[in-house]
Amino acid sequence: MAVNLAPLPPLLPVSGIRVGTVAAGIRKVGRPDLTVFELPEGAVTAAVFTQNRFCAAPVILARRHREAAEARYFLINTGNANAGTGAPGLAAAERCCEALAALAGGAPETVLPFSTGVIGETLPVDRLEAALPAALEALKPDGWDAAATGIMTTDTAPKGLSLAPDSDHPYTLTGIAKGAGMIRPDMATMLSFIATDAPVAPALLQTLLREAVDRSFNRITIDGDTSTNDAVTLVATGQAPMALLEDRQDPRVEAFAARLSSLCRHLAQSIVRDGEGATKFVTVSVAEARSEEEALQAAYTIAHSPLVKTALFAGDPNWGRILAALGRAGIDDLAVEGVRLEINGLLIAEGGALAPSYQEADGAAVMKAPELTLSLALGRGGAAGEVWTTDFSYDYVKINAEYRS
Amino acid sequence: MAVNLAPLPPLLPVSGIRVGTVAAGIRKVGRPDLTVFELPEGAVTAAVFTQNRFCAAPVILARRHREAAEARYFLINTGNANAGTGAPGLAAAERCCEALAALAGGAPETVLPFSTGVIGETLPVDRLEAALPAALEALKPDGWDAAATGIMTTDTAPKGLSLAPDSDHPYTLTGIAKGAGMIRPDMATMLSFIATDAPVAPALLQTLLREAVDRSFNRITIDGDTSTNDAVTLVATGQAPMALLEDRQDPRVEAFAARLSSLCRHLAQSIVRDGEGATKFVTVSVAEARSEEEALQAAYTIAHSPLVKTALFAGDPNWGRILAALGRAGIDDLAVEGVRLEINGLLIAEGGALAPSYQEADGAAVMKAPELTLSLALGRGGAAGEVWTTDFSYDYVKINAEYRS
Repeated sequence: MAVNLAPLPPLLPVSGIRVGTVAAGIRKVGRPDLTVFELPEGAVTAAVFTQNRFCAAPVILARRHREAAEARYFLINTGNANAGTGAPGLAAAERCCEALAALAGGAPETVLPFSTGVIGETLPVDRLEAALPAALEALKPDGWDAAATGIMTTDTAPKGLSLAPDSDHPYTLTGIAKGAGMIRPDMATMLSFIATDAPVAPALLQTLLREAVDRSFNRITIDGDTSTNDAVTLVATGQAPMALLEDRQDPRVEAFAARLSSLCRHLAQSIVRDGEGATKFVTVSVAEARSEEEALQAAYTIAHSPLVKTALFAGDPNWGRILAALGRAGIDDLAVEGVRLEINGLLIAEGGALAPSYQEADGAAVMKAPELTLSLALGRGGAAGEVWTTDFSYDYVKINAEYRS
Repeated sequence: MAVNLAPLPPLLPVSGIRVGTVAAGIRKVGRPDLTVFELPEGAVTAAVFTQNRFCAAPVILARRHREAAEARYFLINTGNANAGTGAPGLAAAERCCEALAALAGGAPETVLPFSTGVIGETLPVDRLEAALPAALEALKPDGWDAAATGIMTTDTAPKGLSLAPDSDHPYTLTGIAKGAGMIRPDMATMLSFIATDAPVAPALLQTLLREAVDRSFNRITIDGDTSTNDAVTLVATGQAPMALLEDRQDPRVEAFAARLSSLCRHLAQSIVRDGEGATKFVTVSVAEARSEEEALQAAYTIAHSPLVKTALFAGDPNWGRILAALGRAGIDDLAVEGVRLEINGLLIAEGGALAPSYQEADGAAVMKAPELTLSLALGRGGAAGEVWTTDFSYDYVKINAEYRS
């Protein structure tokens, strides 16, 4: 059911990083479900975690370990989110980190744990531990493709992208992601791991990741629900032949930021495209707002409206629902006379009512496209913002109503 | 599909008020779709309207007329919401008010218009006007039952309630409501008309209505969408044998407020029970919060979560989704260790994890009830709040995806 989801392209190694994926039998026998990333000494790691107060044990522990030491390993399992598991869950995550550190010869704090999968079940630490030696043996520079598959839960396809070095940008950027935007039954969902061999100063790396995430992973919404396990990491190994990126005024930094944003946007949109139940990939683009915040507030209200989403599923250019959602978006002094709505370039409404030029047949025709852009102009300023989402289909209900499938 | 929706009880007349309902053929031939309320001279009217910026023409005009004159007539049509119709829609609503005023012998400003039905279509003013003489002829004190049916759109049953006078409360309260909580396809939805023969001072009447609405109609949510036409009115004719209610310290005022709130709660819950696609009537009750606002914020986040709503449809006591929704409700310093969750009295989670006593079979058993109360205690204060909602079913998607059915 994925909407125009591109097949996984070849993923390029990132100098200094090795990746190993094995089957530990965490939830299903024989399915790759355990991935280890090995980072070189001196690598800089930035990370952004879920803001959900009920965050999972690995999120708590990864945050804590990052404060204590430089990360040298990521330990990622699928099949079990280790979320809603209380103190025993935290102890289980600690045991896994200790086991990997003991095998690899380092402190437990150098291991960052990540889990994705079913909420509320006990992590099978013994099976996970037993598979660690094989995972370390599997480590190799070109292990990204296997990892893209290894971190999947009910994703229909692996998601990843590499940006190759060129003369202007002498570094590689490779990233993988999994998740389907929180829509999976009982799954704690989104993870993404990105790396570059560019040398980047730690504070700048964190800033650049936060900015890129804010304009990519933070702009996708399937149903407004936020997972307990979401995490995005960015590692910079510093092994590319170039001088350190550390000054925001350096034009190379803006170029790096642009490439990073582009990579994150691709990964984030891949997650939306793979939203199960999704039959449309929808961009909600709001312009002529007083501020970007206002534009995003309007875009999210429309993107979260079940009435709008069911109309998109039906291929109904239902301007009444779109404008009604805009009307309750909390913009108190919105003048409806100034609002214009276009769908894929077709003018539908203006001045608070249906456009005189609009014909139902034209509306029905544009709605047949699998990719829809709802463009709203608010007529009150120069700011803009957009978010990406999907429709609500029978399958959305089916997938999420099935009992812990 | 309505969930435990009580049949319409006998509705008592309110001294001084006459109600007439006829079939004007606005959308369907022969279906009662036009209702007129006649209010006696000296009646006091309070009203609360939608906050949606894309409010319908009749809402704009009713607000304007209330500022200009005392209301003597309500003119209500179903079948057409006169919303998203721009300046011509406003002119159409004006013409209807003028026509009724001319027949009844008053100023157009004494007529308040209300419309409900399909968005974006031109109001058939001629048919509406042609039916006005018959509507005036149909006026009678016991016309409330017919009106409860006459204002329906796709409601499966009429909704109303009367509270009869007794020795402590020598006044009648009668109210009707229509709507299914914004879930109807292209319908601009909720209307409620309430009246009493108690004499109430104008400012107090408006305050009491606003408070009652805030704890009833404003506490229901099917899908978070707010209609462009929502309106609730409360008329006090002052013809009951009792002294004026005007002082908030008067214990009779609190008794009146309690009865009014109880009536509004019944009507509001009736709307949720009739939410098409609804298979469950769900109360989300949050206690031990720092403030009522915080409790409601948590309750709404849970009530709007599509993941929670699809789990409720499936009869799945999915505590992971409920806690994950609570975790993103914007309570930044929420300590998950202090949170308890019960469903219909069964302890499910505490301390941020599944309760040790919880058995899946018990959870599955309580979820079979058509009425569910999700009780959350946040462990951080003494405030509480609750909202009423439904599940998300296949039928929700079906009803809202069907093209302008």
